[in-house]
Amino acid sequence: MARVLMKGNEALGEGAIRAGCRYFFGYPITPQSELPHYLARRMPEVGGVYLQAESEVAAINMVYGAASAGARVMTSSSSPGISLMQEGISYLAGAELPCVVVNVMRGGPGLGNIAPAQSDYFQAVKGGGHGDYRLLCLAPSSVQEILDLMALAFELADKYRNPVMVLGDGILGQMMEPVELSPYSGAAELPPKPWATTGTLGREQRNVINSLYIEPEELERVNLRLKAKYQRMEAEEKRWETYALDGAELVLVAFGTMARVARAVVERLRAEGQSAGLIRPVTLFPFPEAPFREALSRARAFLALEMSLGQMVEDVRLAVEGRCPVYFYGRTGGMVPTVAEVVEFAKEVVKGL
Amino acid sequence: MARVLMKGNEALGEGAIRAGCRYFFGYPITPQSELPHYLARRMPEVGGVYLQAESEVAAINMVYGAASAGARVMTSSSSPGISLMQEGISYLAGAELPCVVVNVMRGGPGLGNIAPAQSDYFQAVKGGGHGDYRLLCLAPSSVQEILDLMALAFELADKYRNPVMVLGDGILGQMMEPVELSPYSGAAELPPKPWATTGTLGREQRNVINSLYIEPEELERVNLRLKAKYQRMEAEEKRWETYALDGAELVLVAFGTMARVARAVVERLRAEGQSAGLIRPVTLFPFPEAPFREALSRARAFLALEMSLGQMVEDVRLAVEGRCPVYFYGRTGGMVPTVAEVVEFAKEVVKGL
Amino acid sequence: MARVLMKGNEALGEGAIRAGCRYFFGYPITPQSELPHYLARRMPEVGGVYLQAESEVAAINMVYGAASAGARVMTSSSSPGISLMQEGISYLAGAELPCVVVNVMRGGPGLGNIAPAQSDYFQAVKGGGHGDYRLLCLAPSSVQEILDLMALAFELADKYRNPVMVLGDGILGQMMEPVELSPYSGAAELPPKPWATTGTLGREQRNVINSLYIEPEELERVNLRLKAKYQRMEAEEKRWETYALDGAELVLVAFGTMARVARAVVERLRAEGQSAGLIRPVTLFPFPEAPFREALSRARAFLALEMSLGQMVEDVRLAVEGRCPVYFYGRTGGMVPTVAEVVEFAKEVVKGL
Amino acid sequence: MARVLMKGNEALGEGAIRAGCRYFFGYPITPQSELPHYLARRMPEVGGVYLQAESEVAAINMVYGAASAGARVMTSSSSPGISLMQEGISYLAGAELPCVVVNVMRGGPGLGNIAPAQSDYFQAVKGGGHGDYRLLCLAPSSVQEILDLMALAFELADKYRNPVMVLGDGILGQMMEPVELSPYSGAAELPPKPWATTGTLGREQRNVINSLYIEPEELERVNLRLKAKYQRMEAEEKRWETYALDGAELVLVAFGTMARVARAVVERLRAEGQSAGLIRPVTLFPFPEAPFREALSRARAFLALEMSLGQMVEDVRLAVEGRCPVYFYGRTGGMVPTVAEVVEFAKEVVKGL
Repeated sequence: MARVLMKGNEALGEGAIRAGCRYFFGYPITPQSELPHYLARRMPEVGGVYLQAESEVAAINMVYGAASAGARVMTSSSSPGISLMQEGISYLAGAELPCVVVNVMRGGPGLGNIAPAQSDYFQAVKGGGHGDYRLLCLAPSSVQEILDLMALAFELADKYRNPVMVLGDGILGQMMEPVELSPYSGAAELPPKPWATTGTLGREQRNVINSLYIEPEELERVNLRLKAKYQRMEAEEKRWETYALDGAELVLVAFGTMARVARAVVERLRAEGQSAGLIRPVTLFPFPEAPFREALSRARAFLALEMSLGQMVEDVRLAVEGRCPVYFYGRTGGMVPTVAEVVEFAKEVVKGL
Repeated sequence: MARVLMKGNEALGEGAIRAGCRYFFGYPITPQSELPHYLARRMPEVGGVYLQAESEVAAINMVYGAASAGARVMTSSSSPGISLMQEGISYLAGAELPCVVVNVMRGGPGLGNIAPAQSDYFQAVKGGGHGDYRLLCLAPSSVQEILDLMALAFELADKYRNPVMVLGDGILGQMMEPVELSPYSGAAELPPKPWATTGTLGREQRNVINSLYIEPEELERVNLRLKAKYQRMEAEEKRWETYALDGAELVLVAFGTMARVARAVVERLRAEGQSAGLIRPVTLFPFPEAPFREALSRARAFLALEMSLGQMVEDVRLAVEGRCPVYFYGRTGGMVPTVAEVVEFAKEVVKGL
Repeated sequence: MARVLMKGNEALGEGAIRAGCRYFFGYPITPQSELPHYLARRMPEVGGVYLQAESEVAAINMVYGAASAGARVMTSSSSPGISLMQEGISYLAGAELPCVVVNVMRGGPGLGNIAPAQSDYFQAVKGGGHGDYRLLCLAPSSVQEILDLMALAFELADKYRNPVMVLGDGILGQMMEPVELSPYSGAAELPPKPWATTGTLGREQRNVINSLYIEPEELERVNLRLKAKYQRMEAEEKRWETYALDGAELVLVAFGTMARVARAVVERLRAEGQSAGLIRPVTLFPFPEAPFREALSRARAFLALEMSLGQMVEDVRLAVEGRCPVYFYGRTGGMVPTVAEVVEFAKEVVKGL
Repeated sequence: MARVLMKGNEALGEGAIRAGCRYFFGYPITPQSELPHYLARRMPEVGGVYLQAESEVAAINMVYGAASAGARVMTSSSSPGISLMQEGISYLAGAELPCVVVNVMRGGPGLGNIAPAQSDYFQAVKGGGHGDYRLLCLAPSSVQEILDLMALAFELADKYRNPVMVLGDGILGQMMEPVELSPYSGAAELPPKPWATTGTLGREQRNVINSLYIEPEELERVNLRLKAKYQRMEAEEKRWETYALDGAELVLVAFGTMARVARAVVERLRAEGQSAGLIRPVTLFPFPEAPFREALSRARAFLALEMSLGQMVEDVRLAVEGRCPVYFYGRTGGMVPTVAEVVEFAKEVVKGL
C-alpha cells in the first residue's frame, strides 16, 4: 500500500480502472476534462477502450450498448452535458443496465460557467429523465473517498443492475490529496452477468435488453419490480458520515465539497462554545434519514448548506418532517460559501431560536 | 361564443394559435401526434410556421432561436422526447426566454409505452435540466381548461420571461368535450419585447440573449434575479381548485386526469357518508400550499393520488410538514387507478385513522 | 427597370426571392454567409421562411420536405457543407424533387480554406451522391448573370422536377457590379404542382413522394424515366457563351470566375496577334459539346482553365474526343490564375503546336 | 494453407483482420450487414474494437481519429451511407490519413433498394466529396480476390497515406467460394508511422494532423504534393486483368461482379467464332489505360458493361480517345445484365461495325 499524491479527477479515472471499468465513452466539457484525458492514456494500458463520441447523446447510448453486453462502462460530463444524457439515463434505468455516470457539476443554468456548483442535485436525485426511476447517487468529499466510492459505484451498479451517478464538482476534481494506493495488477474480476447479450454460445436462452413494454399491465409489473429494487437500496445502501453530531443543537447538513466547509464551520462554532454538529450524506439517493431521526432528540435547528439556491434542503425537510425548523444557506453560480460567512449565518440562526 | 366539441390535443393547438403562437418546432412521438398534425394544418392558415426538426434536441434549440427573436413559440413532445430537451430547457431558463413546452406524458422509464402517465412530475417540477432554475408548470384536467391554460401559459411565459411547461397525458389528449369558443379573427396582439434580438433598427442598444456568465459573481447575480422571479411566481401564480374541501377529514390530492378520477372518488365517498374533499393543484410549480394549510384545521389524513409510483406526494408532504399523515395511492406504467380501487384504498386509510 | 449596384451574394438571394423562393434552410459557412444573412432579412419581408438548421444534413432534408409540399425552396453552403448534403441530394434527385442548391466553392479538400476555388466540379457534375442521377448545374460569371440564372434555376428545377446546382465561388460572391433590376411587387406566380403532397382536399388521389423501390424492375423503370429526363436536358438545356471563337486556333475553355480571366487572356492574346477564342459553358451539366464541334474545324488546341487541378478538362476531352490536343492550366487551394501567367502558358502551348 | 469456403462479406472482414485492421466504426445498412456482424464477433478475438456509431457521419469521423493515431482502421457501408461520409472522406484525403472504406453498392439514387449495383462509380472515382483529391479504388470480382485486395488496400493506404475505397456489391458479398487461407496467428506487423499523433514520448516534435491551410499559397503547396502522390499512384498502382484480349476485335470492359458476366459473354462469343476479349480494371482509380492502348491495335469496338446507366464508360472513352467506337450496355436499379442479353447486344454491335 503506497501513499501517493493524487488529483480528484485522476482518482475518478484510476478508481474506475481498478473497479474493472474498461469502456469510457464521453464528450469533452470543462471542468471534468482531466478525467477523460487520464482515461485516454490509461485505458489502452489495461486493454480498455476510450472513445470520444459525437455528442453526449451518442456517448450515453454507447454506454447503453456496452452495459448491455455486460461490460463495466462509464461516462463523465458536466452539467449541460449531463442534461443531454437524460433520455439515455432513463433508458438505462428502464432496461436495468449497470453503469457509472460522473457529473462534475458546474455553474448553471444554461451555459453558465465552469466554476464549481451543486445545483444539479434535483436532476441527479429526483430524476432528470422521464418515468418512475431512481439513480443511486454517491457524493464523495475527498480524493481518497473518490477512489473508494468509484469502486463502490461499479459494485452497486452491478448488484442492482442500475445506473449509479457520482456527483462531484470542480474543486473536488482539481484538489490534490494523498491517497492509499495498493499495487494494481491490471486484473479485474467482474461478477457474472448471465442476463447480458453476449451471444447464445453455451446457453439456450436468448437474452433481451429492453425498456419497451407495450402493455400497461406489463410495464407496471416492471415498474413495481424496479420499485422493490429502489426500496432494497433504501434498506441497504444508505451511507452517511456524522461529525460532532452527538448532542448537537445546531445540525449542519452538507455533501461533497460543501461538507468540507461545513466541517470547518462546526469546528469554529464548537471552538466558540456552540453546540454544532454535521450530517454528511454520502448517498444522496437513497437519502439517509436515520442520522436525522437520531439528531432530532437534541437538535433545535437544522441548517442545510449547498452550493446552490437550495435543493437538498427539500430532502432535509422531508427527513425532519416539520419537527424542527430547517434553515438554508447557499451560494450559487459557482460561488462557494466561505467558513466565515456560514459561521455568521449559523450564529444568526442560533440567536433566533 | 360558440359551443363546440373538441379533442384535447386539438385544444392544445387551437389554444396556442389563439394565444398568438406562430412558431411550432417539434419531432413526432405518440401519444401527442394529433397536436403537431393539427398545427401542421393550422399554422399556415394564420401565417405561422410549423417545422418538424431533425430531433427533439434540434427542436428545442429552434425554440430558443425563435424565442430570442421575440416570437411566441412552442414545442410539444412526450416523455422520452422531453428528456432529450433538458439541456435546451435549462438554456431557455438561463437566458430567460419565454416559450411553452407541452409534455403529453406516457409510461416510462425508457421507451416504456404510449399509455397515459404522470411519472414526469419530478422532471417537470424539480428540474430535469441542470442548474438552479424553475419552470412554471400548468396541469389542465379538461378540454376547456386546456384552452384556458394555453392562453395563460403564453401570457405567463412572457410576463416572467420563463419557459412554461404544460403537463398532460394521453387520456386528456384523446378526450372529446364541449368547449366555449369565441370567433377568432386570426389577429394576435403580443406584448412588446424590447429585449428581443430583432435587429437594432430604431434603437441604440444591441440586445444580447445569453446564459453564459464566466464570472461566478455575475452568474450568482443572475441566479438571484431568477430566484426573485421564482419567488414572485410563488407569490402571484399559485392556482388550484378544491372540491368539497370544507370540513373534509380525508383530503385527496390529484392533478390532471387523475383529478377527474379523484373527484368521482370524493362523490362516491360522500354518498357513503365519508367526509372527503379534493385539492387539485393547477400550477404544479409553484405548488399551492394555501389550500393545504386551510384543510389542515379539519383534515385527519391526506391521500395523494398519481398515475406514477409517487412524485407529487413529496410536495404534499412538504406542504403538510408532518402535521397530518400523508398516504399515497398510484398506478404506474400507463395504468390508471379506477374509482373503485381508490374508494377501497381510501376506506382502508380512513379505517386506520 | 433600375440600374443598381449589387453584390454577388446578394444577387443570389434576391434572384431566389424574385424567382418565388420562399423557403431557405441552411447552416452557416464562409464564404457564402452573406447570402443567408441577406435572406434572413429578406425572407420575412415577403412572407417567407428562413431557418438555420442544426447541420447541413438537417438543412438538405428540410429542403426535401418543403420541395415535397410544392414550395420553391433552396439551400446554400460551401464545399465541406455541400459534401455533407450528398445523401440528401441523391434523395432529392431520386424522388424527383425540384430545388436549388448553391455551392460557393472554397479551397479543399477537407477543411481547406475560405479562398475561391472550382474544385467541386466533379462533385457537382459527375454526382457526389450515390446512384445514377444528374444535377442540372449552372455556372454564372457575373452579378447580372447570377440574377438571371437564379430565375432559370428555379424554373428548370420545376420543369424537370430535379435539383439544380448553382456553382459560384468567393470572388463572384464578393464582387459588386451594376445590374438591371425591375421593380418587384413581391408576388410570385408558381407553376401548378399536382404531384405535391399538399393534402387531398379537392382531389381523389393521394400523392406520394418517395425514392424507395424495392423491386429492381421497378427501380430500373424509374431510373430509365430519369435517364430520359436527363437526355431531354441534354437536348434542350445546354447553354454556353463564346467569345472570339470564330476561326480561333487556340480555344480556351473556362467557367464562372475563371472565364472572366480567360476572356482577358483572349483579349491579350488577340492584341498580340494570336488567334485565340473562348468557350464558356454556362451549364456544366448538361455540358455543351456543340461549340466544341464547331470550333474543331479550325482549332489546333484546346486549353482548359480551372481553379483546380483539372476536373472540367475531362469533359473537354470527352467533347474533343482526341481530335485535337487538350491542355490544362489551373491553380488550386484558393489560388486564382492571373491573366499574365495564363497568357504565358498559352504562348507555350501555341509554340509547341 | 487451407482451402475453405467463405462468403464475400466474411472475406472483407477476415481480409481486414489479417491486414492488421483493429478498428471498425460503422452504421448498419443492407446489403453489407454481414461484414459488420462478422467483425463484431471477430474484432474482440484479436483485441480490436468494433463500434457501431450514431450515424455514418459519426463513423467516418471516428475513422479520422483512429487513423490520426496510426491505427489500421476501416469503415463499411452501402451507397446512401457512403454519401453521408463524403465530407469525412474529403477530410481524410486532405489530412493524408490512411484508411479503408468499403462500399457494397446497392440500387440508387436515394433510398433505392438493396439489390446489387455499380452506380456509385462516379462517386468513388471522380470524388464524391469536395476539393482536388483522389481515392485509390479497388474492385474485386471474386471471394479470393477480396481477401487479396483487402490486404493490398491497407498496404496502399499506408504507403500513400490516402484513403482506399473497396467497391463491391451485394452479389459479391453473398457469394460463397473456396479460398486459400493460411493459418493466422493474430499478430499484425504494421509499418512505422512517425507522423501519427501518438503523444510526444520519445520524440521532440509534435505531430499535427490537419487539413486546414488558411493561406492559399500553402494549401496549393499541399495540393501539389497530393497531386504528385496521385501521379505516383498512376505510375505504380494500375492493376487490371485481361481475358482473351490478344487479337480481340470486340473488347468488353467491366469490373467487379459485372466482369464475371462479361467473361462468360466472351466465352460464349468466342465459342460462336466471334473475336472478343475482356479488360477488367482492378484499380478504378488509377484507371488502367495500358491494356486499352494495347488492345487498340486490333480492336474495332469497345463495349463497356456496367450495372448502372453508364459511368465507367466515361473513363473508357477517355482511355480510347476517339480512336475506336465505344459502346455501352448496362442495367440499373439493382438489375444485373444476363449473359444472354449482353451476348445479343454484343452481336448487334459487331453487326454494326
